[in-house]
Amino acid sequence: MGPKRCAVASEESLMRIFTVPEAPDSTLSRIEQEISSNLAGFLNENIAAIEKPLHEVEKDFQSAVIPEVPMFVSDYAQDIMEQLVAHSVHTAAPSFIGHMTSALPHFVLPLSKLMVGLNQNLVKIETSKAFTPLERQVLGMMHHLVYGSDDAFYDKWMHSAKTSLGAFCSGGTIANITALWIARNRLLKADGEFKGIGASGIVAAMLHYGYRGLAVLVSERGHYSLGKAADVLGIGRDNFISIKTAGNNKVDVDVMRAKAHELEAQGIKVLALVGVAGTTETGNIDPLEEMADLAEELNCHFHVDAAWGGATLLSNNNRHLLKGVERADSITIDAHKQMYVPMGAGMVLFKDPAASDAIEHHAEYILRKGSKDLGSHTLEGSRPGMAMLVHACLRVIGRQGYEMLIDKGIEKARYFAELIKQTPDFELISEPELCLLTYRYVPEQIKAAIAQADEQEKIEIYAALNRFTASMQKRQREAGRSFVSRTRLTPEQYDRQPTVVFRVVLANPLTSESLLKEIMDEQRQLAMSDPVFKKYLAKYIK
Amino acid sequence: MGPKRCAVASEESLMRIFTVPEAPDSTLSRIEQEISSNLAGFLNENIAAIEKPLHEVEKDFQSAVIPEVPMFVSDYAQDIMEQLVAHSVHTAAPSFIGHMTSALPHFVLPLSKLMVGLNQNLVKIETSKAFTPLERQVLGMMHHLVYGSDDAFYDKWMHSAKTSLGAFCSGGTIANITALWIARNRLLKADGEFKGIGASGIVAAMLHYGYRGLAVLVSERGHYSLGKAADVLGIGRDNFISIKTAGNNKVDVDVMRAKAHELEAQGIKVLALVGVAGTTETGNIDPLEEMADLAEELNCHFHVDAAWGGATLLSNNNRHLLKGVERADSITIDAHKQMYVPMGAGMVLFKDPAASDAIEHHAEYILRKGSKDLGSHTLEGSRPGMAMLVHACLRVIGRQGYEMLIDKGIEKARYFAELIKQTPDFELISEPELCLLTYRYVPEQIKAAIAQADEQEKIEIYAALNRFTASMQKRQREAGRSFVSRTRLTPEQYDRQPTVVFRVVLANPLTSESLLKEIMDEQRQLAMSDPVFKKYLAKYIK
Repeated sequence: MGPKRCAVASEESLMRIFTVPEAPDSTLSRIEQEISSNLAGFLNENIAAIEKPLHEVEKDFQSAVIPEVPMFVSDYAQDIMEQLVAHSVHTAAPSFIGHMTSALPHFVLPLSKLMVGLNQNLVKIETSKAFTPLERQVLGMMHHLVYGSDDAFYDKWMHSAKTSLGAFCSGGTIANITALWIARNRLLKADGEFKGIGASGIVAAMLHYGYRGLAVLVSERGHYSLGKAADVLGIGRDNFISIKTAGNNKVDVDVMRAKAHELEAQGIKVLALVGVAGTTETGNIDPLEEMADLAEELNCHFHVDAAWGGATLLSNNNRHLLKGVERADSITIDAHKQMYVPMGAGMVLFKDPAASDAIEHHAEYILRKGSKDLGSHTLEGSRPGMAMLVHACLRVIGRQGYEMLIDKGIEKARYFAELIKQTPDFELISEPELCLLTYRYVPEQIKAAIAQADEQEKIEIYAALNRFTASMQKRQREAGRSFVSRTRLTPEQYDRQPTVVFRVVLANPLTSESLLKEIMDEQRQLAMSDPVFKKYLAKYIK
Repeated sequence: MGPKRCAVASEESLMRIFTVPEAPDSTLSRIEQEISSNLAGFLNENIAAIEKPLHEVEKDFQSAVIPEVPMFVSDYAQDIMEQLVAHSVHTAAPSFIGHMTSALPHFVLPLSKLMVGLNQNLVKIETSKAFTPLERQVLGMMHHLVYGSDDAFYDKWMHSAKTSLGAFCSGGTIANITALWIARNRLLKADGEFKGIGASGIVAAMLHYGYRGLAVLVSERGHYSLGKAADVLGIGRDNFISIKTAGNNKVDVDVMRAKAHELEAQGIKVLALVGVAGTTETGNIDPLEEMADLAEELNCHFHVDAAWGGATLLSNNNRHLLKGVERADSITIDAHKQMYVPMGAGMVLFKDPAASDAIEHHAEYILRKGSKDLGSHTLEGSRPGMAMLVHACLRVIGRQGYEMLIDKGIEKARYFAELIKQTPDFELISEPELCLLTYRYVPEQIKAAIAQADEQEKIEIYAALNRFTASMQKRQREAGRSFVSRTRLTPEQYDRQPTVVFRVVLANPLTSESLLKEIMDEQRQLAMSDPVFKKYLAKYIK
């Protein structure tokens, strides 16, 4: 698997890779031209439709030894097309509706290249200069979108050396951790002799404040990154209390309130409530207004994880769905989800410009006090200039453009939900609130069998349906024409039993209504040939 | 500052940005062609040489309101060239020797575009497929570089669903946090009734294990990200104990040992020792072998922060400088520093394949148990396919190519150190061990004045020299011909007094010896016209 030909490891040839660009007719340049002139065509042609099993793909990535000798770029490009690109995932395909990916606007490609060529490091002004005010403006614009503060507010804070209105980061997980880090540090702040949790750690903080424990309350539909945050921040996953949802996959705030009072009676301080605006699995939005009320009652931090759903604020027609978000102390929004920016663009925004003080840090060689270096308020250190791509999308697509995209996605999800409901052998599991819904394939005769089944039989059919749905999802992915994802829910219509469902996200503007029909047809065909169906469910078809 | 012309916010025009590429003669395409055919020329021509004050740059990034109407891509591209690119930092310039940046190999530009176009998400196989084994191979290759385990080891673990030999991440800070997160969770693991710190939090963990506190010991030259790790992980910055260095900026292991025993006598468990392999400010490597011994004595985790210096392992001629690193439980290496990969490519590697179990997590819709999804062992969630660029550089440059680059940097630093020593009005502050050194400009007559000064006068001259050095550094940056950074050290030759110094990193292969001479000449000229010099130091020139 070594290089077919060897470039000479001479100083001269080595310097050439830093000084001489790829020839326009080189393999890599030709690949690039193809991407530039027809990205969709490039992806369609070069990503293999039929899935190669992972263990086969792994064969091309076996050696753990760094090759000794240099390799010609053209040979490498050839290899990578065959070994990597061909077996990557066509996340931009209109029929790839299983995850929060989409086709990208074309202009982000040349801009990405500009970003990489400039190779700025946003941790400090000395390696980013104008990128720093640009990133501050992006954070300011997103802050304004959420909180709508007045001009005087942004004039004062957006470019202030004292603070940051948010933190740009690689993605929603880091954003959520940052938000809860700030919440934790603000709660357990310096006080008298006590230097604060940041300096002294949790144990000293708990002793000082006399709490027996800390807790964060969040919907059972909360993203798994919150569990990571609990772990990393030293609070513990078991102290992130999962609260049942009401029937509509929205957290039950009465249950949350009761739990909070129970905890506080035990001496456990509720550090934060986390509202979800666009749950990963069902796309629902928690009752943010009621949660904000509860957070006020409890005098605790209110964080909203809107990593996926936050972009809805760009639509004046739909932003009411997130009513109450403007009362959140912090909010996570991923631009690489519904804002059509490439992977790696997360943000957390803070209502109070003083919030980021709780995690401020300095060094001798950069981030000196009084500098405007963004790195003094971020969890990450060195970071690329991804904010430029968000800036570009905000300006080129504009709020009105985003509104169309968001509205279109929601309308498409409603259309698809209606279609599923009208089709007897399908079943809608969760109604779309945004552009995400769940459903599954259940032939009418199986539905009839469930209706007549006793408890024991019901359990058997439910289990068989779960295995069947998982099998169908896998076979559909492997066939390579389309992709839906799957998850496991506990819907009311199935007595809160664990239920495997198809999950679709309809953010890709290129996904047409007729394509959705085709996907259902394909699923019906897959169902009939499914080995799990034949083995466990066929017997119910009279 | 709004858009000059408005694209129509129609559905049709909106769809065009997703389906129709930029015309080859459009502004953005022309920019891209310029980058492709002559990156160095593009950067030289388009980044303004003379620095515009930051508050002037900020004027173009003032509005916090997301523009309502879409904007033509070409207009945006024009704006961004004038407002952003012109005032960004030429980090690839041979004369930009102040930070850990360099010119990039040309082939990473088209490959970056390919990466963005594919828009994979490495959190899970369903959105990355072949990128997952590729990233696992990169981690395996880097693991092999550090630990050199045998083939059977990599055959068993590199692609194992059970574990991960490391974690790819956005940068060294996340890598360091991940390493210490694992160290913390392994120490305070589940035990009998106790479910482990990850589930139950620090307070419960300390009660269970009976520790009065936790501490991490690290050189006073350790990177500031370690303080962030201490804060985030709930340990507290004050419990990251800073240990004095010996004269050569390497941590004094005897002092570290004494401190460790003192802490343990107080019931404070030493969680980890952190060795630095390439300190950010002076480029020195801690005595890793001795630290590994001490970590064994203490039965604690040994982490090495080799974010910058780790690439030295690629040179067989110089890897002995990191002797003992193969005994580290974990190691941080940034590919975007001395491995010539664009910003955003950090890694942490674990000696023991079971290490990442300590932070394993799952979800229902992805990262299911038994999957090979990389996201079950990373702090971040969604991540781009940056590992491809590391893979490309490892194969195209090859180990031998990296060896040349690393060796050349070290030789250049030695040459520059010699030059400084031979020039009477300069002064070398720290000798280069890798390609980083510090120095400053001190005219001979000032040196003579110091030699004759009484204690009070000495303090005055030292303070003036510090202000003078800071002023020179700033003025040199503003003049835009070259850039050195500055930091503050406590060197022995200045009685351990805080001393502001120039800091240079010589990793850019395009930085020539003659350019280093020119930079010294420029500094001498700047010195003579420096207002701080005139005000506080001129009086010592007889």
